[in-house]
Amino acid sequence: MPPTSYAILGTGALGGFYGARLERAGNPVHFLLRSDYEHVRRHGLRVESKDGDFHLPRVRAFRDVADMPPCDVAVVTWKATQNHLLPALLPQVLKPDGVVLVLQNGLGGEAAAARATPGHRVFGGLCFICSNRVGPGHIRHLDYGSVRMGEFAADGRPVGIADTLRGIGADFQRAGIDVGLMEDLPLARWEKLVWNIPFNGLSVVLDADTSALIADPDALALVEGLMAEVVRGAAACGRTIPADFIGRMLKMTREMTPYRASMKIDYDEKRPMEVEAIHGAPLRAAAAAGVDLPLLRALYYQLKFLGSRMGAAS
Amino acid sequence: MPPTSYAILGTGALGGFYGARLERAGNPVHFLLRSDYEHVRRHGLRVESKDGDFHLPRVRAFRDVADMPPCDVAVVTWKATQNHLLPALLPQVLKPDGVVLVLQNGLGGEAAAARATPGHRVFGGLCFICSNRVGPGHIRHLDYGSVRMGEFAADGRPVGIADTLRGIGADFQRAGIDVGLMEDLPLARWEKLVWNIPFNGLSVVLDADTSALIADPDALALVEGLMAEVVRGAAACGRTIPADFIGRMLKMTREMTPYRASMKIDYDEKRPMEVEAIHGAPLRAAAAAGVDLPLLRALYYQLKFLGSRMGAAS
Repeated sequence: MPPTSYAILGTGALGGFYGARLERAGNPVHFLLRSDYEHVRRHGLRVESKDGDFHLPRVRAFRDVADMPPCDVAVVTWKATQNHLLPALLPQVLKPDGVVLVLQNGLGGEAAAARATPGHRVFGGLCFICSNRVGPGHIRHLDYGSVRMGEFAADGRPVGIADTLRGIGADFQRAGIDVGLMEDLPLARWEKLVWNIPFNGLSVVLDADTSALIADPDALALVEGLMAEVVRGAAACGRTIPADFIGRMLKMTREMTPYRASMKIDYDEKRPMEVEAIHGAPLRAAAAAGVDLPLLRALYYQLKFLGSRMGAAS
Repeated sequence: MPPTSYAILGTGALGGFYGARLERAGNPVHFLLRSDYEHVRRHGLRVESKDGDFHLPRVRAFRDVADMPPCDVAVVTWKATQNHLLPALLPQVLKPDGVVLVLQNGLGGEAAAARATPGHRVFGGLCFICSNRVGPGHIRHLDYGSVRMGEFAADGRPVGIADTLRGIGADFQRAGIDVGLMEDLPLARWEKLVWNIPFNGLSVVLDADTSALIADPDALALVEGLMAEVVRGAAACGRTIPADFIGRMLKMTREMTPYRASMKIDYDEKRPMEVEAIHGAPLRAAAAAGVDLPLLRALYYQLKFLGSRMGAAS
């Protein structure tokens, strides 16, 4: 059996890193690029990593999905703000029995991918990684790197672990990525939101890093209130987040080195923020289940305002 | 009967303006000053006003309440953030039958004055005025100027209009100030909070003026949500704000020239913000009546965080 082929949609901090690792491990990987296309076509991809630097001088680089061969797995690694491109691009890079793996923050990415590719299986993954694109085709991997993967189901119910997912997991493992396979993808997404909703959102609105937020009693009260709302939202959607989860997240954050959340980096660099995926979608999911999350609602409105103004100003 | 004597506690944008007008109209007014004391003692008070400029070359200026004669009416015009000074200063400037008039934003000023002066009557007033202190002893009165006054009752119930209050109102009227006397001071305070809570708070957190907030659909949704919460808080405290009040406030704000709210000015100039009076006290009053106001709570936490950080930075 030939090795599984991958298409990487969005060759940035995530896609550049995971794609380059898969390619180095022997999987044929096809990279979709925009601004970095010319550079990567000539010079390949360069990864600086705590696990060891490496350089792939020649990679399969594409500017247009029409030129890409259909692949076994399409990995969506662009930001959730780009998901309006899924219907036009995603079907073109999939073999008839190809599958999708969405590596994004927040809620809604898998559903959008599934709508764009009827009949194809869709998986989702949560990446626990610090990496940045530091230049054209140049990724700096600072810390962590693991991925938790599970299968998407349109009805939201937990599903088993398909052989296809085991195969993808094995490819990632062979590429040196720590992988966890999960039966309940939505639970994992809600759990990650417990951290992402307060710290991404408040870091933008209050212009603060994680350590400033957690050290201030008022900001901490708001963080805790938001986290409790996310737990309530998850419960409304049928997911039970363990009672000690918030405490563990706070402890972890206290022990982290001060960290500029990804949404804050996007905001500071005047890039679109993933507000709909991280804040809007959970708010709407909870509302659809009959639960209002007012602290999140306040934060969502504020982030939308700041995002609109940034758009207007840029 | 001699004219009513006044002590002005806090000779800034409000106290300088109303005090100078009362003095010019024939009431003996005693001004407590801090940083402007030397200047005002030598050069008096200068008022530039849309109603006509005037200059009082000699005024009764004091740096220390110990030097002030007891007065018939002590007018508290400093910011609510200075109310910790009330117990030490307020009793010293009152005649045995003297009364207090608190001209401040938010909730709690009259209660603090009443605790500081047992046995004295306490009145409160809401000022609808645009004025600024533009230099030592120099007030610029831009627009409006009316005051609505009512009596404070420790049990929160509406009280009638006392002759004393009619007398104070008549003094202000004689000084050219438009005065309204009210039987229900708390209702008026809650009504003013309908505007003050969203626009003062959000202008700081979102770094925006009134026109930016009201023009953006997300910010407007948050403004409306906050206003609805204030109406609920008032109801919990036994005050019915009319159903069309929010609509009228929004219409008025749309028609206003873009306006930097007073809390935003304080924040930009690194002065203490009246967060406790405008946001904290209503939040606590509603909570004491069994009603949570979560959008206000989120805003309160954010403002406290920003205030603390400003304090740490200044």
